Amino acid sequence: MMKKQNTITPKKALVADWTTLTRTFIKPEDDAARSTLIKYMEQILFGLQDFLKKHVGFTEEVSLLDLSKKFTDIRISKNPEKKLTDVLTDLIEDIAPHAVNVASPYFVGHMTSAIPFFMVHLKTIVAALNQNVVKIETSKVVSVVEKQVLAKIHRLIYRKSDAFYNEHIQSPSTTLGCFTENGTLSNLTALWVARNVFFAPKNGFDGVEKEGLQTAYKAYGIQRSVVLVSRRGHYSLNKAGGILGIGNHNIVAVDVDENSRIHIGSLNRTIKEIKNSREKTAILAVVGIAGTTETGTVDPLLKLGEICAENSIHFHVDAAWGGPTLMSEKYSHLLSGIELANSVTIDGHKQFYMPMSCGMVYFKDPEIMDQVIYHAHYVNRPGSVDLGIKSPSGSREANSLILDSALKIMGSQGYALLIDHGIETAREFAGEIEKRPDFQLVTPPELNILTYRLFPASLQKQILGPDVEQAISINEKLNKINRTVQRLQRETGNSFVSRTTLKMGNHLEQDKVVLRAVIMNPMTTIEILRKILDEQENIYKNTFT
Amino acid sequence: MMKKQNTITPKKALVADWTTLTRTFIKPEDDAARSTLIKYMEQILFGLQDFLKKHVGFTEEVSLLDLSKKFTDIRISKNPEKKLTDVLTDLIEDIAPHAVNVASPYFVGHMTSAIPFFMVHLKTIVAALNQNVVKIETSKVVSVVEKQVLAKIHRLIYRKSDAFYNEHIQSPSTTLGCFTENGTLSNLTALWVARNVFFAPKNGFDGVEKEGLQTAYKAYGIQRSVVLVSRRGHYSLNKAGGILGIGNHNIVAVDVDENSRIHIGSLNRTIKEIKNSREKTAILAVVGIAGTTETGTVDPLLKLGEICAENSIHFHVDAAWGGPTLMSEKYSHLLSGIELANSVTIDGHKQFYMPMSCGMVYFKDPEIMDQVIYHAHYVNRPGSVDLGIKSPSGSREANSLILDSALKIMGSQGYALLIDHGIETAREFAGEIEKRPDFQLVTPPELNILTYRLFPASLQKQILGPDVEQAISINEKLNKINRTVQRLQRETGNSFVSRTTLKMGNHLEQDKVVLRAVIMNPMTTIEILRKILDEQENIYKNTFT
Repeated sequence: MMKKQNTITPKKALVADWTTLTRTFIKPEDDAARSTLIKYMEQILFGLQDFLKKHVGFTEEVSLLDLSKKFTDIRISKNPEKKLTDVLTDLIEDIAPHAVNVASPYFVGHMTSAIPFFMVHLKTIVAALNQNVVKIETSKVVSVVEKQVLAKIHRLIYRKSDAFYNEHIQSPSTTLGCFTENGTLSNLTALWVARNVFFAPKNGFDGVEKEGLQTAYKAYGIQRSVVLVSRRGHYSLNKAGGILGIGNHNIVAVDVDENSRIHIGSLNRTIKEIKNSREKTAILAVVGIAGTTETGTVDPLLKLGEICAENSIHFHVDAAWGGPTLMSEKYSHLLSGIELANSVTIDGHKQFYMPMSCGMVYFKDPEIMDQVIYHAHYVNRPGSVDLGIKSPSGSREANSLILDSALKIMGSQGYALLIDHGIETAREFAGEIEKRPDFQLVTPPELNILTYRLFPASLQKQILGPDVEQAISINEKLNKINRTVQRLQRETGNSFVSRTTLKMGNHLEQDKVVLRAVIMNPMTTIEILRKILDEQENIYKNTFT
Repeated sequence: MMKKQNTITPKKALVADWTTLTRTFIKPEDDAARSTLIKYMEQILFGLQDFLKKHVGFTEEVSLLDLSKKFTDIRISKNPEKKLTDVLTDLIEDIAPHAVNVASPYFVGHMTSAIPFFMVHLKTIVAALNQNVVKIETSKVVSVVEKQVLAKIHRLIYRKSDAFYNEHIQSPSTTLGCFTENGTLSNLTALWVARNVFFAPKNGFDGVEKEGLQTAYKAYGIQRSVVLVSRRGHYSLNKAGGILGIGNHNIVAVDVDENSRIHIGSLNRTIKEIKNSREKTAILAVVGIAGTTETGTVDPLLKLGEICAENSIHFHVDAAWGGPTLMSEKYSHLLSGIELANSVTIDGHKQFYMPMSCGMVYFKDPEIMDQVIYHAHYVNRPGSVDLGIKSPSGSREANSLILDSALKIMGSQGYALLIDHGIETAREFAGEIEKRPDFQLVTPPELNILTYRLFPASLQKQILGPDVEQAISINEKLNKINRTVQRLQRETGNSFVSRTTLKMGNHLEQDKVVLRAVIMNPMTTIEILRKILDEQENIYKNTFT
């Protein structure tokens, strides 16, 4: 197998030679190394939550600045710096403690949480097989499995007939969607397709993908393209606007109503204005959100679907967060109308509880991705099942294998338990916030996300008066309080909520700094959430009063 | 911790309830399950190559069509379909055998190969920590490690001063590059930045990212944008042209010389023509390739760098494949001139031997990514170290942790042994091909990729005459022979070379179907390559004579 010069290895210094290489490539160097590795792997694979609790830091014990001073090594060492086991030990003993234990039930600030231990097993198997799903020749059956799982999730969204799925599930020429790195790239892909559908080839024009936007605008007599989404839209939509060449200023933010949902009146007005404007403008898409990042709100998807149909506009739903709610019999109705979408983004690493990172985008029309076909001489040849033909990606890992297995292990009902727990615990939490005099619930949970703020009772009374200037000054004070409490709580290192700044429906109202909780960890209970509020209250009192 | 209704589980059927959920979330259900899992994980983690040999199929024993008929399940089962251990057993016993053993030393067709066993351990740790590198709040020290490894690879390419790296390695406001999902997205990112640099904000114009291409063209008096690359350029560059709105027809393919390198005369002519054309055209970038996908050729990077500097054009180098050659003291000179590039793509899952998938893109100017900054209220706030601020991605896994560890374990010299082995074995293989009367070496290896074809001696004599029509007909015959032999060898299931179609430098010459070998597996020896040629010769003789 491995060969070449067998140099003599000195006792102390590590040397890169074929002997070392064979060891590091094939197997642990000796029994001691092997047992060190086994110890770690057993802890990780069979005691994941305990391992994380024991080894992984929480938040800010050491400041980022201090940490960054320790990682300033600019040289790749010529010979191995350390033995394999020492590097792994460092990872676990030195790096992990300064990472963030996102699996803690007290970590309710972001959309990253504990994952089931078997997900790590699945990820390990996928890494070992090391298939590249860009093409059949480096993945074979895995590409076929991917098409199957795409159909399963497509059906969860669109509920088409069995005949429809039988036709498309393994069809080499059509696709029901694609896997991407994350929701950002899924949103990009959806808008990429929407742009190309709008500026499709026609008499003498080869389509925007080939000829570019300048020529497309000329061919269609267009001067500007826009995408409409509520001001709660994810920033990836702006990024997509920038990348796709339509300009992120043309991702138009529509006002929201008092429930953080897109304001339908404003949307209709905006569409009308655009249609009547002197500058001829293409509306490439309207985006509905099923679970906004900041407030977890779901836009009125049915209504949006109707408006898009009437106006022949591509309807995209960003369900990166909320998509898996469709598995809950109790709460799937919250997403009614999603089946009207021309495209839907769903993330695997969010409420499918997969490890980082996995995005997906689905399309109602199995032929619509023909607008983004790419071939090459050595792969992705016309007629092949190579999944890279219709995809923003090149080489890709086989995340589909993880999702397909997880669906079998959990069942939709298993996922539904997690979803329901999140929604119901968030509601309990909202009740708890409303009971406390020094807090204000800002956006109640529709799914499992809510925002609130410290709003001391004394200040609540003052703001009720008619004095606008005073209200503004109190809001500024509140913003400062909430920014400070959030930071101090994070630095204390017991629990973590995030913060964001909400512009509410009314234009005159000021930006509100709010605390944001995302309840997805099944181990996060109302008792834990109460402790988090207690701590915030104490921090406020110790700092500001 | 976990709670809720403890329903009674029937003996046979699997039910999703909180008891099951706790089991699947936290730990194996019982000792039997645990020992099944341990058995698999031990095989995977400590006997990776043997495991793959034992469990993973090679190529086409079962046809893809037959396989696809077995994966047509469109329903997500409500309750768990199978126990965790059964799902994993299926993965290993039923799925893996129909995947592709890319780790076999006989698999020399693509840029995916055996990876060192420790890479799987690292991937497992990264999955267990489940950090999201989009922001500090879900990654902390890991973001700092990422900045360190970006500096290490940047220095490998650009060799700037220590003072330069000390300034930038941990600077929150500058970045030396970013991690992406793959080379495709790295190339997209490089051209995205180049486009935005060209169409930067100026008097009254807010820049292309905000205002879009239409307005940018008007502001700059431009009618068309192009990117120039040799006809061996990766198809992702065309895709990037489509996505970025400049149109993939405007990714202009420049002729290659007889060594598959970009033809400098043609490039200069093209630049001149564009500058003199009536249609005012922006040259957004010239792309040099350091290891073309099809032939492994390196463009004359020094010369390209000079031409770009003279003409003030963004110089991008696609070193997705060849980049790690810089670690070889013997062969790094092959990439001379790469340090002149404004941006460089390098893949982790190629010659850094990382698991799928990891791309990277580096920039000479640590401030150039300011052209693609995105902020949000709840993350990526101005002034933070959040890595998502300058990145095409949103949520991302911590691949940087794998690369940083691998560099320590291998040393640059360890990687150099792999690189040197590939280049030198490819040269030996080329010699072997040239010795055989029925083969023709089409593109000799510059790095570790070569192409060749079956070209029976009898036909070689016939093609030497002046008859053009006969030459064309012989070439067609050869194309058919090589297509057939490649397919039959793959279907036989012992070894795999890929095939591609090369358009050679001379316009008059016909497209040649060639066999393509990528030598990166350290276990691939010349003896194995001889056997592969023997098999091809036999297949040819049995099929065509």
